[in-house]
Amino acid sequence: MIDMNRQVLLASRPQGAVCVDNFRIVDAPLPVPGAGEVLVRNEWLSLDPYMRGRMNDVKSYVPPVQIGEVMVGQTVGKVIESKDGQLQRGDRVLTQLGWQSHGVARAKDLVKIDTDRAPASYYLGVLGMPGLTAWFGLFEIGQPKPGETLVVSAASGAVGSVVGQLARTGGCRVVGIAGGKAKCDYVVNELGFDACIDHKAGNLLADLREHCPKGVDVYFENVGGAILDTLLRVMNLRSRIVICGLIAEYNATEPYGYKMLRSVLVNRIRMQGMIVFDWKDRYGEGIKGLAACLAEGKLKYRESIVEGLDNAPQGLIALLKGENFGKQLVKLA
Amino acid sequence: MIDMNRQVLLASRPQGAVCVDNFRIVDAPLPVPGAGEVLVRNEWLSLDPYMRGRMNDVKSYVPPVQIGEVMVGQTVGKVIESKDGQLQRGDRVLTQLGWQSHGVARAKDLVKIDTDRAPASYYLGVLGMPGLTAWFGLFEIGQPKPGETLVVSAASGAVGSVVGQLARTGGCRVVGIAGGKAKCDYVVNELGFDACIDHKAGNLLADLREHCPKGVDVYFENVGGAILDTLLRVMNLRSRIVICGLIAEYNATEPYGYKMLRSVLVNRIRMQGMIVFDWKDRYGEGIKGLAACLAEGKLKYRESIVEGLDNAPQGLIALLKGENFGKQLVKLA
Repeated sequence: MIDMNRQVLLASRPQGAVCVDNFRIVDAPLPVPGAGEVLVRNEWLSLDPYMRGRMNDVKSYVPPVQIGEVMVGQTVGKVIESKDGQLQRGDRVLTQLGWQSHGVARAKDLVKIDTDRAPASYYLGVLGMPGLTAWFGLFEIGQPKPGETLVVSAASGAVGSVVGQLARTGGCRVVGIAGGKAKCDYVVNELGFDACIDHKAGNLLADLREHCPKGVDVYFENVGGAILDTLLRVMNLRSRIVICGLIAEYNATEPYGYKMLRSVLVNRIRMQGMIVFDWKDRYGEGIKGLAACLAEGKLKYRESIVEGLDNAPQGLIALLKGENFGKQLVKLA
Repeated sequence: MIDMNRQVLLASRPQGAVCVDNFRIVDAPLPVPGAGEVLVRNEWLSLDPYMRGRMNDVKSYVPPVQIGEVMVGQTVGKVIESKDGQLQRGDRVLTQLGWQSHGVARAKDLVKIDTDRAPASYYLGVLGMPGLTAWFGLFEIGQPKPGETLVVSAASGAVGSVVGQLARTGGCRVVGIAGGKAKCDYVVNELGFDACIDHKAGNLLADLREHCPKGVDVYFENVGGAILDTLLRVMNLRSRIVICGLIAEYNATEPYGYKMLRSVLVNRIRMQGMIVFDWKDRYGEGIKGLAACLAEGKLKYRESIVEGLDNAPQGLIALLKGENFGKQLVKLA
């Protein structure tokens, strides 16, 4: 039996919300590694909000995915054939191979992972991009001090859950924002936040005032839109806003009009955008710190798993609607 | 003849744009200084955009002016009676006495100024709050580097004119934004900016792209509204936006809805609000630096003078409409 390489391609660009018709699933011949390359069978695919941006034909961090190309994404997989001395058949590696069952990459572009330290899938989450995003965004931009109040949106998500737990370990009062009672219960009862506000309940401003009686010193933003505009009303003097994601805007056809920007002036807020790549020279430091917190039981972590590559489009659609619960993954093998 | 103390009081809070009916002019008895106090005859009153905010009954940096109170403001005046050993009759002082011909203040709250170094009125402008606002906002938040492009709005104004000249001395390409051809000509021909865009011409985005071919690294914002939203479209990776003023919003009954905030994320912009008080412990350092630039001819400076306290309301109204040209002052005596 000859294996085929199953792939999910970008079929068309979404107008507003992503739908399954924006993708096309195909079987391609298995690629063959050349000198210095390896063939990888992907085991886990990470789904992340940034993928929505790459589906648009606009300038962002990096060029968009072209129509007919394999959707971008990080995976963890197993080396099944190696033409390079540095990697052996059976090694587990972190890749950028995207939404496909197999792929060929240069060995030097892959990071070998240690599955004795943590399960392979963790390298796509708490010990991967989301964890590092939380680590550097929080400490380098948010700069929380003990006794301060931190609010984080998408609090049950891959980034938000780590941000809140790290800040609480650092002595902050930590209030999450999440969509729905189940997520809020998880954030408080499992992750140990001081409180979690259900933004779907429709009382965000009043709830923020109740749960942040001393105002907000650090806001870690994953969502944007009306939530950010409301937070601007409760930010303290010399507070910081980490703009990590604006997922509420990604699917919107019209950008949100922020009306509370005057708060940045009045309260001398520092608002700063970030992407984890900005600290790529320091990933080792971040992974070491996160792994230590994990080992000490200070970092609880949850995964939301979709079975099979063919279901990856639905997984991304659900993620963009906030239907996931923890780090969103696709199990491929 | 007994002197009276002429005062401009806040008569009512503006709904939208300020009008003369929001003020009442009265003659009060001349105040009498007690021990440790001095009587000052004000000579120059500074008019500044922040005054608009103080007319509203909303939280801002400091409490609002109450109805029936003397309008707030900085003045330069002459001591005409002293009950304190530290100040002599005839000394020139910087005060917070507001919109009135005379006033009593504690000697220790006044700053004696040196009129040999610069004309008295300069201590309300280039060597006063506007100059210090430019100095600290530019160097502490904007952090321009040689070869970078800086844009400043209200470029012919008291703050903007200093920001641009300091940045150009520091090796930046400097592009101003001002309202009308006369101001733009002044900014380029007199102040030496590389270019100045007339935002009233209606081509701001295209003009920015033409005059900032390498994008914008530092934007010093005095205006806000549509101008800030447009600038967000041309900011570079890791650029900085100094939010010093949002004068376009002060008179607006509805806040502007900013649609380009996503640029903060994509370009990892640092946007930060400021007020000069944040550096009050370092004013001496700023004044020294500004005075040195002035002495070396690196800092050109222009004043727009209204004659007489009774015309102060019209002066403020004109300032808020952008009709002034340089630092707006009222000559009182």
